[in-house]
Amino acid sequence: MSINSFGHLYRVTTWGESHGPALGATIDGCPPGVPIDEGMIQQWLDKRKPGQNKYTTQRREADEVRILSGTFEGVTTGTPIQLMIENTDQRSKDYGDIKDKFRPGHADITYFQKYGIRDYRGGGRSSARETAARVAAGGLAREAIKALAPNLKITGYMVQMGPHKIDRDAFDWDQIEQNPFWVPDAKAAGDWAAYLDGLRKSGSSVGAIIEVTARGVPAGIGAPVYGKLDTDLAAAMMSINAVKGVEIGEGMSAAMLTGELNADEITMGPEGPEYSSNHAGGILGGISTGQDVVVRFAVKPTSSILTTRRTITKQGEETEIITKGRHDPCVGIRAVPVGEAMMACVLLDHLLLHRGQIGTNRGRIGPEA
Amino acid sequence: MSINSFGHLYRVTTWGESHGPALGATIDGCPPGVPIDEGMIQQWLDKRKPGQNKYTTQRREADEVRILSGTFEGVTTGTPIQLMIENTDQRSKDYGDIKDKFRPGHADITYFQKYGIRDYRGGGRSSARETAARVAAGGLAREAIKALAPNLKITGYMVQMGPHKIDRDAFDWDQIEQNPFWVPDAKAAGDWAAYLDGLRKSGSSVGAIIEVTARGVPAGIGAPVYGKLDTDLAAAMMSINAVKGVEIGEGMSAAMLTGELNADEITMGPEGPEYSSNHAGGILGGISTGQDVVVRFAVKPTSSILTTRRTITKQGEETEIITKGRHDPCVGIRAVPVGEAMMACVLLDHLLLHRGQIGTNRGRIGPEA
Amino acid sequence: MSINSFGHLYRVTTWGESHGPALGATIDGCPPGVPIDEGMIQQWLDKRKPGQNKYTTQRREADEVRILSGTFEGVTTGTPIQLMIENTDQRSKDYGDIKDKFRPGHADITYFQKYGIRDYRGGGRSSARETAARVAAGGLAREAIKALAPNLKITGYMVQMGPHKIDRDAFDWDQIEQNPFWVPDAKAAGDWAAYLDGLRKSGSSVGAIIEVTARGVPAGIGAPVYGKLDTDLAAAMMSINAVKGVEIGEGMSAAMLTGELNADEITMGPEGPEYSSNHAGGILGGISTGQDVVVRFAVKPTSSILTTRRTITKQGEETEIITKGRHDPCVGIRAVPVGEAMMACVLLDHLLLHRGQIGTNRGRIGPEA
Amino acid sequence: MSINSFGHLYRVTTWGESHGPALGATIDGCPPGVPIDEGMIQQWLDKRKPGQNKYTTQRREADEVRILSGTFEGVTTGTPIQLMIENTDQRSKDYGDIKDKFRPGHADITYFQKYGIRDYRGGGRSSARETAARVAAGGLAREAIKALAPNLKITGYMVQMGPHKIDRDAFDWDQIEQNPFWVPDAKAAGDWAAYLDGLRKSGSSVGAIIEVTARGVPAGIGAPVYGKLDTDLAAAMMSINAVKGVEIGEGMSAAMLTGELNADEITMGPEGPEYSSNHAGGILGGISTGQDVVVRFAVKPTSSILTTRRTITKQGEETEIITKGRHDPCVGIRAVPVGEAMMACVLLDHLLLHRGQIGTNRGRIGPEA
Repeated sequence: MSINSFGHLYRVTTWGESHGPALGATIDGCPPGVPIDEGMIQQWLDKRKPGQNKYTTQRREADEVRILSGTFEGVTTGTPIQLMIENTDQRSKDYGDIKDKFRPGHADITYFQKYGIRDYRGGGRSSARETAARVAAGGLAREAIKALAPNLKITGYMVQMGPHKIDRDAFDWDQIEQNPFWVPDAKAAGDWAAYLDGLRKSGSSVGAIIEVTARGVPAGIGAPVYGKLDTDLAAAMMSINAVKGVEIGEGMSAAMLTGELNADEITMGPEGPEYSSNHAGGILGGISTGQDVVVRFAVKPTSSILTTRRTITKQGEETEIITKGRHDPCVGIRAVPVGEAMMACVLLDHLLLHRGQIGTNRGRIGPEA
Repeated sequence: MSINSFGHLYRVTTWGESHGPALGATIDGCPPGVPIDEGMIQQWLDKRKPGQNKYTTQRREADEVRILSGTFEGVTTGTPIQLMIENTDQRSKDYGDIKDKFRPGHADITYFQKYGIRDYRGGGRSSARETAARVAAGGLAREAIKALAPNLKITGYMVQMGPHKIDRDAFDWDQIEQNPFWVPDAKAAGDWAAYLDGLRKSGSSVGAIIEVTARGVPAGIGAPVYGKLDTDLAAAMMSINAVKGVEIGEGMSAAMLTGELNADEITMGPEGPEYSSNHAGGILGGISTGQDVVVRFAVKPTSSILTTRRTITKQGEETEIITKGRHDPCVGIRAVPVGEAMMACVLLDHLLLHRGQIGTNRGRIGPEA
Repeated sequence: MSINSFGHLYRVTTWGESHGPALGATIDGCPPGVPIDEGMIQQWLDKRKPGQNKYTTQRREADEVRILSGTFEGVTTGTPIQLMIENTDQRSKDYGDIKDKFRPGHADITYFQKYGIRDYRGGGRSSARETAARVAAGGLAREAIKALAPNLKITGYMVQMGPHKIDRDAFDWDQIEQNPFWVPDAKAAGDWAAYLDGLRKSGSSVGAIIEVTARGVPAGIGAPVYGKLDTDLAAAMMSINAVKGVEIGEGMSAAMLTGELNADEITMGPEGPEYSSNHAGGILGGISTGQDVVVRFAVKPTSSILTTRRTITKQGEETEIITKGRHDPCVGIRAVPVGEAMMACVLLDHLLLHRGQIGTNRGRIGPEA
Repeated sequence: MSINSFGHLYRVTTWGESHGPALGATIDGCPPGVPIDEGMIQQWLDKRKPGQNKYTTQRREADEVRILSGTFEGVTTGTPIQLMIENTDQRSKDYGDIKDKFRPGHADITYFQKYGIRDYRGGGRSSARETAARVAAGGLAREAIKALAPNLKITGYMVQMGPHKIDRDAFDWDQIEQNPFWVPDAKAAGDWAAYLDGLRKSGSSVGAIIEVTARGVPAGIGAPVYGKLDTDLAAAMMSINAVKGVEIGEGMSAAMLTGELNADEITMGPEGPEYSSNHAGGILGGISTGQDVVVRFAVKPTSSILTTRRTITKQGEETEIITKGRHDPCVGIRAVPVGEAMMACVLLDHLLLHRGQIGTNRGRIGPEA
């Protein structure tokens, strides 16, 4: 069944393995007439690309995207768009060590238990390399969004690395692109660099929390009750490799609030409803309020570390394993553009759904209502 | 589009409003040959039913389920099963106050903005009353699971109410059914009763965290990469009214761990792989490991409180509102059986998918592999 | 899986058996703001209702539809609409004869082989009684279409009964509602009455061909390449009980034409493109041209006849069977409103899809293009 | 929405245009463990490939398929399989003539009306070149079927070309691969060669009827009521370019039969039920009976002919057009392997569905029932 696909109307199917000849995204449902070229997509892939600084894996991939279908004379035609990325750094190394051993914390054992066969080269399909296809699909989604919601702006950033959180009072949008961690807090950027350098040298790894904010989302998108905007965002983020938790607005902390503190009061502004606060994260009843849509997700530390760990073999024998070679001390860093891409895909999808289902019926608040 | 449906093979479509004549679940894909009668489903509805103690809303609904199709001589036939619950307590009260005003924290405003029309009686489709249909579908799913995974056992319970958390060291499965909060900690049950009584009397409300554990889940279920078991569980839980966050295993705290602490080591037990810990929450790469599947979700406090709040009218005028009448001081309590139901539906769905996609290919770990 | 559903955006799930307590249609995706009441749907059910004249089965069903959800103050709200029809004539007859015997030409044997259990009362789920739910869904679709394509008009009629075809030169739209066969040819109506009376008295049955024409369909709807308008119409018609063939426009006869005869030439009319002929049946490349959309389907004769037939029992013993009681000498008659309903559902679905996917990009032919 | 996809569990998404860099099929849901290599798929593409004899278009395409993902060490892994075919013969010709003119009988005008933009090079997405991707997907399906239904054999052949029908009494399976028309009648093969040669020389074209028979289909597959085996086959065949009608078993002629003639009587054979005839085409109530599954479809004559035809331009001006260059006098010939491929995909899909939904519940007819 179409389990490697997501989205209702903007439907993305990703394909490909870490060490196969190529990977990509087959996109069905992109509206016609969207100006697009490879460069517009490439910029987002470059943001995610490994090997750009000492804090991410040293695998070197060109990650060059090719558009194989669905465009004509520089615009989309409404037919399926194939975005392909060839794998260039398929290092011909010896996989003997993991061929029969299952790496703890990785999907090696479960893929084998499910399918009875696994492509063990670099994790095969379970590799985070699959997220390159998501980023490509997200890049296209961003362009398509422009025609439907011109003011919509999606930004991802890190808010926590290991025990270190950002200082919300020092939050600065302009800092995000100024440091390798996409962190909106200049002081944190400096502190984290030293912390992560220590982890990298010791061959350890650490988790992180990424927040993605979408500003300028029109009110009214989201499809109750099983395609709610928050439902689809939760699924989108949880489907990213290594993610263990997803929060909307107040998130898990909503448990600690009373009703008086949690519900955002409504006032009338010059252009429509305004809110006294945004505990809701921009979503009520699964539908956008017009406030910022705010999602957070936690990424676990990579399990590829330089410490010896106990495990078993395919044959059921107990043994030990140590993961040598390239690794990311904090995979959360590279998850930032992936989270942005998922947000873009989900929002485009719901913008399209809203057009299709509602048309002229949409409620406007005001004297004429 | 089929936005009021969830599931891949066990496909549930819920329908109905808070104050319409009836609500229910249309279930397509239940395997044939499952023994079922209304009593088997009713027991779960009774667990969720309002008005059972002073901590939940005093709305009185019989919540009697009727099976209208899909069974013959006491077993399912493989055709669609219609589970209908008639609304009996459609109190003919005056809705004048909320007809034109939007209640803060509720979906009143977004439904109006999306659809241009809303059934304001009791929240209409956005009411938590919709979850009765989920519980019915979950009751059927539990029976169907018995044939596929006889040892599978699903249990939900509260682990936090407002600032009060359970003591994990005092965790006692047997306590869960002994108190009105489904809390696995006898001392907490007593403390919470006093706390909630205070909230109830003051007309306030508070959030909660519910945990649902599934024991006896076979290894190998879950469908990478967009129908991962954790992805589908995140969507299922986030789709429940008032939920703002979902965690699998270590959840958001995974951000704080290092790779050494997070990855569960593997050993070989008499019946298959065993793990030193369960930070993963029973899922690796989206596929079950055979360990307990552990999901948590946070429920925000209900926004129906006795404090006056600022809001606007449909016509855009600023005003105030206060929600009188029946309310739940902690809606999280009644979310426990709903979370269990969603877990049951998702697990049945993936058990069916696993059968369909894999058959005899499933990997067994052992000398012959 | 959602196999009892059809449609992309206007999604209809039918449920119920011939002799269960009720049957119905759960409809997800109907746009909000459509004025609807039970009477608007009932008129189409009355057209299909059995027992109206001596040419159809004498089963007496009130076939009264109830709307259980999805409307408020007389209009749709955008939430799921439940249309329920209770079975009233569940004649408590002796089913001993067919309980263990498989009726030739019926689905008795295949349902048993598939599911291992079957509701043998009146054919259970495989009964044509299921089509009542389709007609209800089609009635709602007709109302929703009005807002999107006000000039769209759907008409079904018989063009062949057994060996007797209508005279195309005598085609008269006004005749269709003047005779019990929905035949657009006054002379044929008379001839067929005599022919069918003979069949009825002898306990035999005969097949038929129904044609459904949709006039006023806007150009540009249909979703290449696997949701083509003709693809979806073919599936919709073939899914009706007893249908064995579906044709669009020229249909099977297209095989006999040369390219010169088949391709409809294009000219420019005052309101847009016009065509010299309509061999295409209003569809090119799966997309509507703006001409009449013309579909035909063949209905086999009912296999419930008064002649003894050879068959086997569940236990594999050879035996004979004769179907006593109520039967339709030409089930094709009652298939006319069913075909219309399927056309309405498919067209609404594609009108909605076209809105959602394309918006303002649609091509207009003219000087400015 | 996923409109370029078909199938429930074996889900095929095709992509690509006639004159883009490549086209292909993204396949999700192929079971793991299926031995596959490019040669196994290439044999079917070679059967469809143009330019093999004087009766088909002289476009020269290598049509070489590459497997880009989803296999490891020669077997499928259960992950998505990308089958890519690069376009090599993108003749750099002058498209000036059709850039602004709509070819009658082609989808030029409707694609423009739907999308507001069209890739006019060779028909773009509406070109029959898309069927190469179907044939590739069908080739893989054939290999996957082997594990599930080892005796299943799919064969397509022509039964009518223009006015010329085969002699059913002379039907000879062994003739099918002996002539360029895949016709099971040696005499017809000779007659048709002369007939088609005349058409080719005069620049005309003609339609055809193709029949596809599947032998060895297990009883019990097909998913009532909207995923019936015949419903899915009708959709699959109608979705092929130029198809205007689809028949199952007796097809449109069922209209002319009486109930006595149409219903196939059942007897008990050594291995299960047997039937006196096969008017049903192997399907009752949407579920396979175990008899041959027989589907026919009519292909219209290509509209690319050497006769001048009236048409209009994008700007709405009346003009004339004549299609020069390569063309197929009878596109039905190359539709034979396409019809086989669609049959293979649909049958695999339903074999997988049957496994997933039913398991051990399947009914066996015999003394123990």
